[in-house]
Amino acid sequence: MHEPIPSEAIEAIIQAGRRMDARGWVPATAGNISLRVGPDRLAITRSGGHKGFLTPDHVMLADLAGRAITPDARPSAETLLHCQLYRLFPAIGAVVHGHSVPGTVLSMLEPGPRLRFAGYELLKAFEGQTTHDTALDLPLFDNDQDIARLAAQVEPALHQGLALGYLIRGHGVYVWGPSMPVALARLEGLEFLLACELERRKLGVIT
Amino acid sequence: MHEPIPSEAIEAIIQAGRRMDARGWVPATAGNISLRVGPDRLAITRSGGHKGFLTPDHVMLADLAGRAITPDARPSAETLLHCQLYRLFPAIGAVVHGHSVPGTVLSMLEPGPRLRFAGYELLKAFEGQTTHDTALDLPLFDNDQDIARLAAQVEPALHQGLALGYLIRGHGVYVWGPSMPVALARLEGLEFLLACELERRKLGVIT
Amino acid sequence: MHEPIPSEAIEAIIQAGRRMDARGWVPATAGNISLRVGPDRLAITRSGGHKGFLTPDHVMLADLAGRAITPDARPSAETLLHCQLYRLFPAIGAVVHGHSVPGTVLSMLEPGPRLRFAGYELLKAFEGQTTHDTALDLPLFDNDQDIARLAAQVEPALHQGLALGYLIRGHGVYVWGPSMPVALARLEGLEFLLACELERRKLGVIT
Amino acid sequence: MHEPIPSEAIEAIIQAGRRMDARGWVPATAGNISLRVGPDRLAITRSGGHKGFLTPDHVMLADLAGRAITPDARPSAETLLHCQLYRLFPAIGAVVHGHSVPGTVLSMLEPGPRLRFAGYELLKAFEGQTTHDTALDLPLFDNDQDIARLAAQVEPALHQGLALGYLIRGHGVYVWGPSMPVALARLEGLEFLLACELERRKLGVIT
Repeated sequence: MHEPIPSEAIEAIIQAGRRMDARGWVPATAGNISLRVGPDRLAITRSGGHKGFLTPDHVMLADLAGRAITPDARPSAETLLHCQLYRLFPAIGAVVHGHSVPGTVLSMLEPGPRLRFAGYELLKAFEGQTTHDTALDLPLFDNDQDIARLAAQVEPALHQGLALGYLIRGHGVYVWGPSMPVALARLEGLEFLLACELERRKLGVIT
Repeated sequence: MHEPIPSEAIEAIIQAGRRMDARGWVPATAGNISLRVGPDRLAITRSGGHKGFLTPDHVMLADLAGRAITPDARPSAETLLHCQLYRLFPAIGAVVHGHSVPGTVLSMLEPGPRLRFAGYELLKAFEGQTTHDTALDLPLFDNDQDIARLAAQVEPALHQGLALGYLIRGHGVYVWGPSMPVALARLEGLEFLLACELERRKLGVIT
Repeated sequence: MHEPIPSEAIEAIIQAGRRMDARGWVPATAGNISLRVGPDRLAITRSGGHKGFLTPDHVMLADLAGRAITPDARPSAETLLHCQLYRLFPAIGAVVHGHSVPGTVLSMLEPGPRLRFAGYELLKAFEGQTTHDTALDLPLFDNDQDIARLAAQVEPALHQGLALGYLIRGHGVYVWGPSMPVALARLEGLEFLLACELERRKLGVIT
Repeated sequence: MHEPIPSEAIEAIIQAGRRMDARGWVPATAGNISLRVGPDRLAITRSGGHKGFLTPDHVMLADLAGRAITPDARPSAETLLHCQLYRLFPAIGAVVHGHSVPGTVLSMLEPGPRLRFAGYELLKAFEGQTTHDTALDLPLFDNDQDIARLAAQVEPALHQGLALGYLIRGHGVYVWGPSMPVALARLEGLEFLLACELERRKLGVIT
């Protein structure tokens, strides 16, 4: 008998995909979405398929090493980036990854290892922030099809603590939270900041 | 027994949050929404939570000094800015506050104390305006986590009369009206003006 | 007894308002929408109110001179611009007027009396056009709160024939068609052209 | 008796039109959508009409030479471009054509015969791509009202293999796939790339 996936987890992932699709953050087969459902278990979207039109069949179970528990299910290579977060931080309950036009464009424009955000009230939407009068960094990593190697690049930054998430160049953002609503709210907050920053660069404020 | 919140007030606030979310004006946990429901009472969104997915539990009752009437409810610090408006102007029935990309970007771009709008037919959507052939100012205040101090900065401008609302730097707009539909319509009108102004600055019209 | 408004006309106007609202073309109380419903009758949105949330009460009956037939109903001043079109062109069955960010910005940017569109396949969506290899003009008039005077300015251009509609500076577009679906499709086509043109100006293609 | 159109094909086309409309890719009467439904048969949208509001009557049957099978139905001239794809590639099951603001603007800005996309993770959404570390070309053809002549221009590029689809200047993109969901996902992926590229050109990255 198969190990079942909690139906609330399936529903939360399907709804998250619809929300991200409505915002344009899961174009084509982009993005992936997961939820922790046990001490060594995550429910996660399978490889391929459109994240705005998920059905229960598109959600699979994996362990925290990224191995499929659901029989005959192929996990996305990027499942390892989700697992990395769940293994390192017991408080993380949900991880979302999407591609947006502002995030993609800024990540390809900025040659350095980070984007810095300062002076935004919305910074307070992120954990541990109590004032807008601060600056938060979004680390920026070069894209790599070798996900284990990419994860190794990300790991030191995770140990330093990342309030905003991280961005992969030409690719998209990874954001997380204790629950799916919080992860989605942070994704929305981060995408708002990225959209503002893109507008500011067009106006020549940041060069 | 708890002092009840009129169900129409709860419904009006929930619907206003959905509308603002559909426009992208309440990212993450941003924004707050209130309605006057008695001589010394307002119904207002609680601190935190996403304003696009409000339930009746997210709406609380406060008095015009900003004190919680609903037991165990924590009002947002910005409740004081709502109360200020209700206390000063008996004709105000609803107050909405949102964050938009154009408002945030323009507020950080413009170093002065106001944005000026001229030549727009849409200026007629604001109280007391009968012609497009006029100029209206949107006062711009520096953001401050000390809301009482921020309110004190806003107060003189309120006494002079503000047709459009006001804007807090890096933060967002406050707009109001005799009813929720009018407050929302003015918010929409103001966001339209801000979006136009941002495009015009990109085209080098305003520098 | 009141002269009734055909329920299909009311429904068509309500649905047109929702469509325009979904596209962001009727901010605040902007826009108006009408349908010819008899030899000397049009059904039209009343003055004020949000066009995205119309109810049957927001629709009134007027004659082609712009006089209210519905008792106690105040027609918008701009009703005269609708009447002008219905009087001059018996084939016109519906007129829509909306405000968009690209139309407003371009109308304020362009000092001359027209915007010219050339090389767009979408030009074929407009009456009498069978090729993209043409140029169509959108006349641009200065805004005027005296609507009779504005109508007098528009009239000569109407007699020459206007494939695209016309644009009022700082204000918005007027578009029409034999039926509401055709009028809305042309509005959408024109707004697409305006959005393209705004992007091209940002890229320095048109100066 | 008429040769019937499979109801699932009609439904797939209607839903594809709604999806494209929600994204703003079928303004006015723009766009067309088809599905292979037999060895020498395609179901395709008729000429004219809005693709966001299709009913079963708007879908017709044609053979792979572009001749109407449905009695009294006028195929769009561009049906020939659909037929060309189905004739050349047996694996193609669905073809979609839409107009977007970024595609239209870029096609008019770029004087050369192609747009090149490099460094985007989303390139992996297209057939045969396993890495972002590549460059894919989108061929760009001059618009032509003589569709047979346009098809002849397109044919050599099709024989070379086109991962992304192709773009007609001032007009829009043609994209395909083995099924409607895959064709729509590729359209969405390509439009995402076009939107990014337009933003990058505004920032002066590509000139």
